[in-house]
Amino acid sequence: MASGIIALITDFGTRDYYVGAMKGSILRINPEARMLDISHDIEPGDIRSGALLLEQVRPHFPSETIYLAVIDPGVGGDRRPVVIETDAGTFVGPDNGLFTPILMGTGVERIVEIEKGEYVHRDISPTFHGRDIFAPAAAHLSLGVSPGDLGPPLVDPVTFDSTAPAIEENRIRGTVVSCDRFGNIISNVPEDALKRFAGDDPIAVEIAGETIDRFGETYVSVSAGELVALIGSSGLLEVSVNGGSARERLGTSAGDEVVVHRVVRRGDPDG
Amino acid sequence: MASGIIALITDFGTRDYYVGAMKGSILRINPEARMLDISHDIEPGDIRSGALLLEQVRPHFPSETIYLAVIDPGVGGDRRPVVIETDAGTFVGPDNGLFTPILMGTGVERIVEIEKGEYVHRDISPTFHGRDIFAPAAAHLSLGVSPGDLGPPLVDPVTFDSTAPAIEENRIRGTVVSCDRFGNIISNVPEDALKRFAGDDPIAVEIAGETIDRFGETYVSVSAGELVALIGSSGLLEVSVNGGSARERLGTSAGDEVVVHRVVRRGDPDG
Amino acid sequence: MASGIIALITDFGTRDYYVGAMKGSILRINPEARMLDISHDIEPGDIRSGALLLEQVRPHFPSETIYLAVIDPGVGGDRRPVVIETDAGTFVGPDNGLFTPILMGTGVERIVEIEKGEYVHRDISPTFHGRDIFAPAAAHLSLGVSPGDLGPPLVDPVTFDSTAPAIEENRIRGTVVSCDRFGNIISNVPEDALKRFAGDDPIAVEIAGETIDRFGETYVSVSAGELVALIGSSGLLEVSVNGGSARERLGTSAGDEVVVHRVVRRGDPDG
Repeated sequence: MASGIIALITDFGTRDYYVGAMKGSILRINPEARMLDISHDIEPGDIRSGALLLEQVRPHFPSETIYLAVIDPGVGGDRRPVVIETDAGTFVGPDNGLFTPILMGTGVERIVEIEKGEYVHRDISPTFHGRDIFAPAAAHLSLGVSPGDLGPPLVDPVTFDSTAPAIEENRIRGTVVSCDRFGNIISNVPEDALKRFAGDDPIAVEIAGETIDRFGETYVSVSAGELVALIGSSGLLEVSVNGGSARERLGTSAGDEVVVHRVVRRGDPDG
Repeated sequence: MASGIIALITDFGTRDYYVGAMKGSILRINPEARMLDISHDIEPGDIRSGALLLEQVRPHFPSETIYLAVIDPGVGGDRRPVVIETDAGTFVGPDNGLFTPILMGTGVERIVEIEKGEYVHRDISPTFHGRDIFAPAAAHLSLGVSPGDLGPPLVDPVTFDSTAPAIEENRIRGTVVSCDRFGNIISNVPEDALKRFAGDDPIAVEIAGETIDRFGETYVSVSAGELVALIGSSGLLEVSVNGGSARERLGTSAGDEVVVHRVVRRGDPDG
Repeated sequence: MASGIIALITDFGTRDYYVGAMKGSILRINPEARMLDISHDIEPGDIRSGALLLEQVRPHFPSETIYLAVIDPGVGGDRRPVVIETDAGTFVGPDNGLFTPILMGTGVERIVEIEKGEYVHRDISPTFHGRDIFAPAAAHLSLGVSPGDLGPPLVDPVTFDSTAPAIEENRIRGTVVSCDRFGNIISNVPEDALKRFAGDDPIAVEIAGETIDRFGETYVSVSAGELVALIGSSGLLEVSVNGGSARERLGTSAGDEVVVHRVVRRGDPDG
């Protein structure tokens, strides 16, 4: 453990003083801390997008990484501050569902509720635990303090309901989990579910009243301006437009339904 | 002194080459320099917001920090380039009021006008002193050069008028200094002024024609969607909406008036 | 070579997981890597703006810098992944024109096509070479691997047509290459071309139907709200408004024509 990079994920934006105050708080405790910005542009209070981002970046970071993740609309209420130690990173932030994919995954080694004491600020603002609890905790972890020293075990962490797609006999019913900057529509349907459902058979994707039956390897597998379904870099089914925005074309947003069918070929016995 | 982090605050945005050019200029002088982004999203030319941000982040950084702060609408004119050395950080940037709260505070040890010479670039673009004067000066400071070596003392630094609230017998008259990403409306009324004015008596806040008489500890001290007044994490009176944007609800912006009254309880002798 | 900073330029934005995944991929290969954000806000797929940014920042960075530049609308197609080693920086990214100004300049020492092998990821997503090819290649370069070890020489790198201005007898015909955050309109007309064309004679700039005959040193060379032509910090002719946005005033955007004339003084023999 310890001496890892501290990777920051927040919904603070970069216009206000909040990110700076967290970085300063870390440096006052560990002047040699190495920090790295992953994103401060999560929509304010959007815990599910923060959870998705954590799930997406984690496989690509060293296992010593300390994630300081603060999307915390309930700050100052009764939600608990936590540290989650896993075999692939240590996570510090609010116990409000943000760490659902981490907790549902394998490799969780210890969950601790951060308590008041020597490893957090003496004066804790009721509205900014990022600065006064989470950043100091992460800084101490980066100095080698053990998660177990930060507080007692927490046995009932908060998770939100799974958003796994429903795999039925004749279709998969999933949802849009994100639309990225390029307008790619990212669903919650993983590649392996598609394979189990359809094998090597062709499929069609229904979304926003449109049916996409072109399946490609890349955005440029179709002509410019055309819709294509593909497996994106996180291993999830995406719908994209080559050189354009599928999100704008189809008018979709997170939460919309995505349905996958097997394509019945003409001339098939049951066609 | 010296060998501190260089913390960057600008109004450059992150789309153009300006931030990159400053970072490169620092590295060419001190290849081991450690840099940290606080914000590049100050509104173009908004010196007062830059000053507020400096005031807000400073308490949370190590005292060795070198702040490279460039909000510089008068670049190339007759405003002077300065270094301000204090017991809580060294500040490099334009002498245009940006450092008002630093200069009004305690702990100022030395103010220097940066002059042409070995510690700035040989060719100075009249339109980009951030790259050609301020970044080189900060880089040399990070290598241990003394502020006094950068130029002669400057005795009359520019400050803008105080924006302290007026504390009257029956009310405090303050102003909105900022609205943050979450829609919290931040005033210039500090917690201690409120205490001196009202002690433990209840207060009401008038802003944009609305009266807020709910005072809480946190954003979640009221039900979702309700307005609440509270002391924010910088120690200033804020008006917020639990789970929403007070700025949007009330249509306020920086400079608007905020008035605090004592609440006269029903049945009070003079009620 | 080697052990330089890795400077990142992408069109990924900072809301999605892409930047984080690249940074993590670098750290898994070189845990001591030093990374620096130049910009992630290039417009999606805007190769020419990325090329301009590279051209603008390069003179200000140490020559050991490794530029990881990913604006890659053709990812997964037949465009090649390249490393370009020069006497002023090493460039890693897609061979799609992004490196045109680097390739047109002096000091190119070696161009290599990155091939599959030990220096890139084993599993390469067809849609995210930034993470799976370019970041690993940059990380290995930062550890001292020679560009020549990444693959075979590439002899025909892609460049787009020069956008140099046309210098005619009675005018220079250039174009707008960028409008910055401050609303400055930046042309492709370099200072030395202006000098060769007009010497010390006065000039006038025509753009969007407006003629600007005020030429200044700085934005504040004219009164607030007035238009001024000047040489910007990259050595290019700019049109600006003191304290305002020339872009908004004139309604210009990249690609618009900019024409420079000599001003015929009244009373001149041929006037």
